[in-house]
Amino acid sequence: MTDRIESYIDQNRNRFIDELKEWMRFPSVSAQRDHDKDTRACAGWLVDHLKNLGFKASLVDIGGQPIVRASKKGMSQRCVMIYGHYDVQPEDPIDQWQTPPFEPTIRDGILYGRGATDDKGQVFTHVKAVESLLKTEGQLPCEVVFLLEGEEESGGDALGRYVTQVKDELRPDAIVISDTTMYDEKTPALTYGLRGIIAFEFIVKGPGADVHSGAYGGAISNPAMTVAQILAQCVSPEGKVLIPHFYDDVAPLEKWESDMFRKLAFNEKALMEELNVPGLHGEGGFSTLERLWARPTFEVNGIFGGYMGEGPKTVLPAWAGAKVSMRLVPNQNPEKIAGLFEAFINSIKPDTVKVTVKAYDGAFPSVVPIVGPSVEAATRAVTRAFGKAPVFTREGGSIPVVSTFKKVLGLDTILIGFGQNDDNAHSPNEKFSLEDYQRGILTSAHLLQEMAR
Amino acid sequence: MTDRIESYIDQNRNRFIDELKEWMRFPSVSAQRDHDKDTRACAGWLVDHLKNLGFKASLVDIGGQPIVRASKKGMSQRCVMIYGHYDVQPEDPIDQWQTPPFEPTIRDGILYGRGATDDKGQVFTHVKAVESLLKTEGQLPCEVVFLLEGEEESGGDALGRYVTQVKDELRPDAIVISDTTMYDEKTPALTYGLRGIIAFEFIVKGPGADVHSGAYGGAISNPAMTVAQILAQCVSPEGKVLIPHFYDDVAPLEKWESDMFRKLAFNEKALMEELNVPGLHGEGGFSTLERLWARPTFEVNGIFGGYMGEGPKTVLPAWAGAKVSMRLVPNQNPEKIAGLFEAFINSIKPDTVKVTVKAYDGAFPSVVPIVGPSVEAATRAVTRAFGKAPVFTREGGSIPVVSTFKKVLGLDTILIGFGQNDDNAHSPNEKFSLEDYQRGILTSAHLLQEMAR
Repeated sequence: MTDRIESYIDQNRNRFIDELKEWMRFPSVSAQRDHDKDTRACAGWLVDHLKNLGFKASLVDIGGQPIVRASKKGMSQRCVMIYGHYDVQPEDPIDQWQTPPFEPTIRDGILYGRGATDDKGQVFTHVKAVESLLKTEGQLPCEVVFLLEGEEESGGDALGRYVTQVKDELRPDAIVISDTTMYDEKTPALTYGLRGIIAFEFIVKGPGADVHSGAYGGAISNPAMTVAQILAQCVSPEGKVLIPHFYDDVAPLEKWESDMFRKLAFNEKALMEELNVPGLHGEGGFSTLERLWARPTFEVNGIFGGYMGEGPKTVLPAWAGAKVSMRLVPNQNPEKIAGLFEAFINSIKPDTVKVTVKAYDGAFPSVVPIVGPSVEAATRAVTRAFGKAPVFTREGGSIPVVSTFKKVLGLDTILIGFGQNDDNAHSPNEKFSLEDYQRGILTSAHLLQEMAR
Repeated sequence: MTDRIESYIDQNRNRFIDELKEWMRFPSVSAQRDHDKDTRACAGWLVDHLKNLGFKASLVDIGGQPIVRASKKGMSQRCVMIYGHYDVQPEDPIDQWQTPPFEPTIRDGILYGRGATDDKGQVFTHVKAVESLLKTEGQLPCEVVFLLEGEEESGGDALGRYVTQVKDELRPDAIVISDTTMYDEKTPALTYGLRGIIAFEFIVKGPGADVHSGAYGGAISNPAMTVAQILAQCVSPEGKVLIPHFYDDVAPLEKWESDMFRKLAFNEKALMEELNVPGLHGEGGFSTLERLWARPTFEVNGIFGGYMGEGPKTVLPAWAGAKVSMRLVPNQNPEKIAGLFEAFINSIKPDTVKVTVKAYDGAFPSVVPIVGPSVEAATRAVTRAFGKAPVFTREGGSIPVVSTFKKVLGLDTILIGFGQNDDNAHSPNEKFSLEDYQRGILTSAHLLQEMAR
């Protein structure tokens, strides 16, 4: 049985790649309204594709980007729901892409393009897995439901609202998400922890217009300097977040976790080389892996104000601002952190400027158990496909829906990633190796079989 | 005699305005290479204009933007050299102009457009003054030399090199510059002090590309945060510059200056209203006028890095940077300050990022005497035109050529400004009131007469 599936995946390798490329060509950038048509077309393409595989599939419109819902019964009564997202991050900075983001290109066995790993490529492993099962076995081992959203990259709430609406008809036995990564190229992983997030933009307003820095410099606050001073008060040079009560709810790592992190023997030198930085940096007293997986952060995502063109321009800017985001860990609450941040900004802002803060949607952090029947099924599937058992990891990123599923459906999610850390998710030259793609398809096929038991 | 000149200026008022508008239409933005043709055309237009008034006039090419040199003998042997600049600041932010920057427009007796006050309008007061003298008196009271550069706004060195080359043939008895302002709308001023300047851009480089703030946040330095932390270490929240030895050479105000500043009764409330700021701010222990005129500053002119578009984007930026400038006062030396700043940045920069600093050309601060024959002549001229004596002021801006003239020609400059502080030099909606323009022409005519004595 396994041999038949493996052969099918091998024999259809090129078509599977071509189909993924075709789907990746849709610039489904959900954050940009002028891509709404592309985003919908991207979802529609997948609905048609799943219909051709015999799924009952449709677009769900509930405000915001449409949701793809598709299902097909299987041999067993058990139901596995696969979540993913078909929307992608904006492409910029566009000039740093070696090949255009929406013209998927293969170089040296690696597929480059926006969405390659996050999350179109990983979603498509499951789509091609169900195809492979259907074409070789004639039917699925269990019921499979696809629930794919188009707002993951833009913080929309359509999926959350939908799941709440239909929670009584959606009664999966297990939920699977492939939107994380392997531990490294040779080591498969099941991810049991994700950070949450809360993001803001704040703007500091000074004079009504940019003014002459000679004529007015020394008389009034400089908004760009105020932005810098506010940010510098948020994080110490040693990487500690200085917002009062920020760490109050942070759950310390349990001993088995610290021990496990240590055993993973994280390669700091390789990370420095990958990122081309002269050194690593972060909160004192924690290892790099602990800082990435289990400690909250405060990051500046963008900073702007005044003259950004060529050469000097001696103005005192009318305004300046920054986009910041904080990654959160259990048991931090994004709403509570939002309140702490806004109160802190208000407490430190000088009264010689006007400061406005805007919060974007947040997401809760998650941890899921590393024991139980679904985890055991996933472990068996990975072991069959990779020839080795997965390690258990946490990740620094956020998948908001995991806490939604827990809250609304009462189910923990299996997080099984097929890509790599350096796949440039959210960055130029996003990629997904063809080997990871093919192995992901095989793993997913095994996973559905194991979960059907 | 005075009556004849005044009448001539009155009668030709509209033509004088039209000619200035015609000259302002050239987008002579010297900082932008793609405006080089416009900048040269702007200079050429003035050469032709001065030739038509009987001047010997030509463009001097010495590398960089051309210099306008023009001269005409007069009744007395004395020679007055008028310096000014025909280049202008970039127009941006373009969307904040009520009417296009290079389509001069009159609203409520005020002429709006780039260069209106800085410095085309003020240069043109002298051009129309010599015309008025020539048309009413038949000849100039003394020799008049125009020396007008096209690199004042972009820190070029062509004029300095040229003055050094021709210093033996350029032997003026007095130098006049109109590139400052009146004290207020009703109070004419002779300016005796200017700040110097030194400007920099520094760039902080982190990872090779913008990376996912979840996947990497906590492991490496955030370049935008590093920029903020560097800036926050340069200036205290109380407005004190923290670069070691920055204040070492600052000449304290003399008692007569402090007394005079106090007597000028600076209107802080009016400044707050003009700039629409909730409060004034600057170095503790000094009055607003002292901070503006006689204390050095550190300003952020621009700050940039990461995602600046709409909505959130959770990246950790590859790099970020800032443009900063420091206004300097006697006896600070821009080169020495540049060295202090670069050494300071190098001493505080974290070793987990790469930091590069680029210095732009600097300018020395200046003070000129408030006594002597030229100052007395200027005082008489202002008193005749305004019906009141000028006050003595300093200014926060920089006119680098003043220290060049002192060093190369051994002459102090008379700084007599006809515009206002709120004329939006370097800002959107730059302006020059038609009343100031006309009174400037009359004052210049009187000045040449008084200086001929």
